[in-house]
Amino acid sequence: MPQISASSFLDRTFRAICPQDNEWRDRARARLSELTMPFWALGDLMDLAVDLAGITRSLHPPVARKRVVVMVGDHGVATEGVSQYPVEVTGQMLRNMVNGGAGINALASQAGAEITLVDVGAKEDFSDLVASGALIAKKIGHGTDNMLLGPAMSRTHAVMAVEAGIEIANQLADSTDLFATGEIGIGNTTPSSAVAAVITGRPVIELTGRGTGLDDAGLAHKVAVVEAALQKNRPDAKDGLDILAKVGGFELGAIAGLILGAAAKRKPVVVDGLISTAGALIAYKLEPFVRDFIVCGHGSAEPGHAPMCAFLGKKPLLQLGMRLGEGTGAALAFNLVEAAARVLTQMATFAEASVSTARKN
Amino acid sequence: MPQISASSFLDRTFRAICPQDNEWRDRARARLSELTMPFWALGDLMDLAVDLAGITRSLHPPVARKRVVVMVGDHGVATEGVSQYPVEVTGQMLRNMVNGGAGINALASQAGAEITLVDVGAKEDFSDLVASGALIAKKIGHGTDNMLLGPAMSRTHAVMAVEAGIEIANQLADSTDLFATGEIGIGNTTPSSAVAAVITGRPVIELTGRGTGLDDAGLAHKVAVVEAALQKNRPDAKDGLDILAKVGGFELGAIAGLILGAAAKRKPVVVDGLISTAGALIAYKLEPFVRDFIVCGHGSAEPGHAPMCAFLGKKPLLQLGMRLGEGTGAALAFNLVEAAARVLTQMATFAEASVSTARKN
Repeated sequence: MPQISASSFLDRTFRAICPQDNEWRDRARARLSELTMPFWALGDLMDLAVDLAGITRSLHPPVARKRVVVMVGDHGVATEGVSQYPVEVTGQMLRNMVNGGAGINALASQAGAEITLVDVGAKEDFSDLVASGALIAKKIGHGTDNMLLGPAMSRTHAVMAVEAGIEIANQLADSTDLFATGEIGIGNTTPSSAVAAVITGRPVIELTGRGTGLDDAGLAHKVAVVEAALQKNRPDAKDGLDILAKVGGFELGAIAGLILGAAAKRKPVVVDGLISTAGALIAYKLEPFVRDFIVCGHGSAEPGHAPMCAFLGKKPLLQLGMRLGEGTGAALAFNLVEAAARVLTQMATFAEASVSTARKN
Repeated sequence: MPQISASSFLDRTFRAICPQDNEWRDRARARLSELTMPFWALGDLMDLAVDLAGITRSLHPPVARKRVVVMVGDHGVATEGVSQYPVEVTGQMLRNMVNGGAGINALASQAGAEITLVDVGAKEDFSDLVASGALIAKKIGHGTDNMLLGPAMSRTHAVMAVEAGIEIANQLADSTDLFATGEIGIGNTTPSSAVAAVITGRPVIELTGRGTGLDDAGLAHKVAVVEAALQKNRPDAKDGLDILAKVGGFELGAIAGLILGAAAKRKPVVVDGLISTAGALIAYKLEPFVRDFIVCGHGSAEPGHAPMCAFLGKKPLLQLGMRLGEGTGAALAFNLVEAAARVLTQMATFAEASVSTARKN
């Protein structure tokens, strides 16, 4: 089944995604080369500035309005004991975020970013949080099914999860210059490793880590669970929706959708660690051009993350041994994206500042 | 000559520097371990938060008022053709900073930091900038002497350079929570490599890079100049002031002083790249406890920087291939220091947020 016909909404979104604009990349490169510093002396920030120009078609890429979108979902496979934490922690951590006490609150506020919380598939209902406006309801199911016994969700639900993410991006695009992806969902490193194994083609054992803190026996069990789920479901590596349905999660699909939606609106999207990058891999499978809009915020301490970034051809901006998720690494990287934009917009050229240029070697 | 008797002002400063407070480090570690996340899941940010608590003796380390101090100096050795840029660029870049067009302006403003400019030894005079209040005058000389022919400065001037930095720290301490070091001075990677070679004991060739953009022949010449200067002056590796006087620079001494002064006031100081770290090495030679107050902001693309950080036992927070100086890498790292403080102060504990804790393995 050609995945482009999955839904006309997805189809329209994919078609709206085109690569970075090389003309604007060239213009940015030309200006950056003239700025008052030795050639390319701000390194990766300058490469990022070129990307921002190519993404936004502007030498003044807007980055002021930053937003982390946290997708919430639960996982049937959590009953297999793949996490250190009980499933009710998903809801407890969601409430902690609403109250401002989670890691993402600290790091988003440092970066001057808003947080948007979206329930796409938590086991629990949060009607109070939806009623108060603290949570957007896009619930597709009360947690996925256990992928050890069969597909985590139907193909229809996989399409709906991606659509939910795109809808969120569309809804927020007018008030957001810069997106970041985040999530909560007890057990969600397990489907992330499964998705990564299918898409990168690398062994499960390389892509699976301790998550919230498994010991050696717990890690071995988790690897066995991922391998058994892949064996049971045999996802089609060429079909992003099949992978998402069989071994993914609602929030992984919504993250993929958010990235696709941001790209369709030509907005940069900073991707967080293991789980968010699994969502990015699904987005990339659905529409490869989406890669041009992705910034890898940080390299997670989870061992599976580095091969996933390498598969996308991305170097993470930060390497701080973080493995919290929630979008924390992406929020922290917002500062670097803003810095890159300021280099492009705020620095003077040699001519503007009347500074002598280098002698030729 | 025992360096402790170099000046009673230096002596008093050294004696005011004591290590991080282990009791506050332990308190911070205890609180961080209880925060609503898997154990130590924010990695290096949490280690940094422990340092901030140990430095400031507080679980609410103040970090809001950030300041980059840019020390300006020129170098006699610049006449040996060790830089791509003519010496008048020091003054031109200083004026560019005053006008807001330099890299440090872009990155300090992103981080919400003030910039303080201090002339400790530029060749040119800038009476207009001093009169307008844009520049603090602490001038010790009109550029150093050429270290290829003899000492870069007298021991008295070396003491004065360090004292100038301490005075600036003392003057600014009441309005600054978090310091960063920066500099301008054409040719200043050359004395920095010389200082690093003496203090780390590593070969000059490992510690010398292309600076503003030398080609292979230019780099070979620069290495030969550094080696010849060390041969000519034979600085005493155990005496920080001797090293500074013979193969250092006025701004290197002032950076060392700023770091020492900040430490004596128990303020964290974020050190920038190659040149700032050479200043930090001198500070460390003068009073090893200063190390506890130093945060390495970023790892420079200059090859000499990594061994210098390793000598100090510090892992730089950022690795972005930057090599601009001015304090740019330190300013960018201000965001991470602020983020670390916010993790400590803003996140809720499991008990505070009523979140279930992990089961034991």
